[in-house]
Amino acid sequence: MTESQATRTLGAVLYPDFELLDVFGPLEMFGGVGPELAIVMVAKQPGEIASAQGPRSVAEYGFEDCPELDLVLLPGGIGTLPALGDAQLLEFLRRQAGHAELTMSVCSGSAILARAGLLDGLKATSNKQFFQLATSQSSAVDWVEEARWVEDGSFATSSGVSAGMDMALAVIAGLYGLERAEAIGARTEYEWHRDPFVKYLNQGTAALAALADEE
Amino acid sequence: MTESQATRTLGAVLYPDFELLDVFGPLEMFGGVGPELAIVMVAKQPGEIASAQGPRSVAEYGFEDCPELDLVLLPGGIGTLPALGDAQLLEFLRRQAGHAELTMSVCSGSAILARAGLLDGLKATSNKQFFQLATSQSSAVDWVEEARWVEDGSFATSSGVSAGMDMALAVIAGLYGLERAEAIGARTEYEWHRDPFVKYLNQGTAALAALADEE
Repeated sequence: MTESQATRTLGAVLYPDFELLDVFGPLEMFGGVGPELAIVMVAKQPGEIASAQGPRSVAEYGFEDCPELDLVLLPGGIGTLPALGDAQLLEFLRRQAGHAELTMSVCSGSAILARAGLLDGLKATSNKQFFQLATSQSSAVDWVEEARWVEDGSFATSSGVSAGMDMALAVIAGLYGLERAEAIGARTEYEWHRDPFVKYLNQGTAALAALADEE
Repeated sequence: MTESQATRTLGAVLYPDFELLDVFGPLEMFGGVGPELAIVMVAKQPGEIASAQGPRSVAEYGFEDCPELDLVLLPGGIGTLPALGDAQLLEFLRRQAGHAELTMSVCSGSAILARAGLLDGLKATSNKQFFQLATSQSSAVDWVEEARWVEDGSFATSSGVSAGMDMALAVIAGLYGLERAEAIGARTEYEWHRDPFVKYLNQGTAALAALADEE
């Protein structure tokens, strides 16, 4: 891929202890768009950064030298908790979201966007197991608990972890057409949930009961 | 996590241009097992290694200094083609699979295992869009085209990309119990396909027709 072929740049914004699938599920789908979409990874400083599950990834840009992004992808994960107090991260997100075509979050990433004040007046959602973490960041957001993902204005927020892949395919369908999204879903053998209010169809009753007990 | 808590070590074996979700979908699921399962990434040399989609990951071990693995995870991707001719990779896989409790592949990764002679006499599957790449490596393998994943002996092989997550949950259910697998599926909001012969339920007819035309 040459730089000149790319008409949009997507930047995944990493912070320590990000959730692996929040980043790499959507990047698998966006990677299927082809050379017209460049994908970069960004963190406070360029270099290695560890996920919540342990494996490390490499940010090629730091906040200071990151180019203007067209699409922003912000993951969740256990690292969300310290990230909520990271003024440089919040400022970077405000700066990029100010001009980005679309800013996306997966899982508890929407809590960080809400803390940055970026979701005020908009509909948004978040991970169902940590929903209050998101809602407690701002009461000016119209939180939609039952959604798997929500698009409003220049923001798209998804529920937990694997919901990010469904959001990514919906965003690809919007930007590049339904046929492209369907082809990517088929190639990755992914059963795309097209309904943003899809319910769990196939989970164990014991697991769901356990989650209900935690709430 | 301290080393002493881990009773098993899973190693993801990376090679240039590996498919992102083949690695990080299963690692998301295995990462949910907890501190009793250590996760490491391995490549020919330790250090940075680029995926097919561009983003780079970090291998903490090279083939020479890699410890004995209990679980091996081998991805597919466009990098499979040169990997089939990589004698050091094939030898590393033979050495690790010789003592591992379970060696897993996702997508075209099973073509590499077949080339290494490791699947002879066993049932196995592979990515449906590149199935012949796998079958052409060995006629002594009982290739099961209609399967989403197959477990046989100390090997588990899955179909393309997202099928690796279903295989991972099935393996976790076998090693750590169904309840643990269900809890991980629920926490990641992943709709686990428990049936290894599940069909696409929700794909676009246009995309499926296009794939059929390619075959």
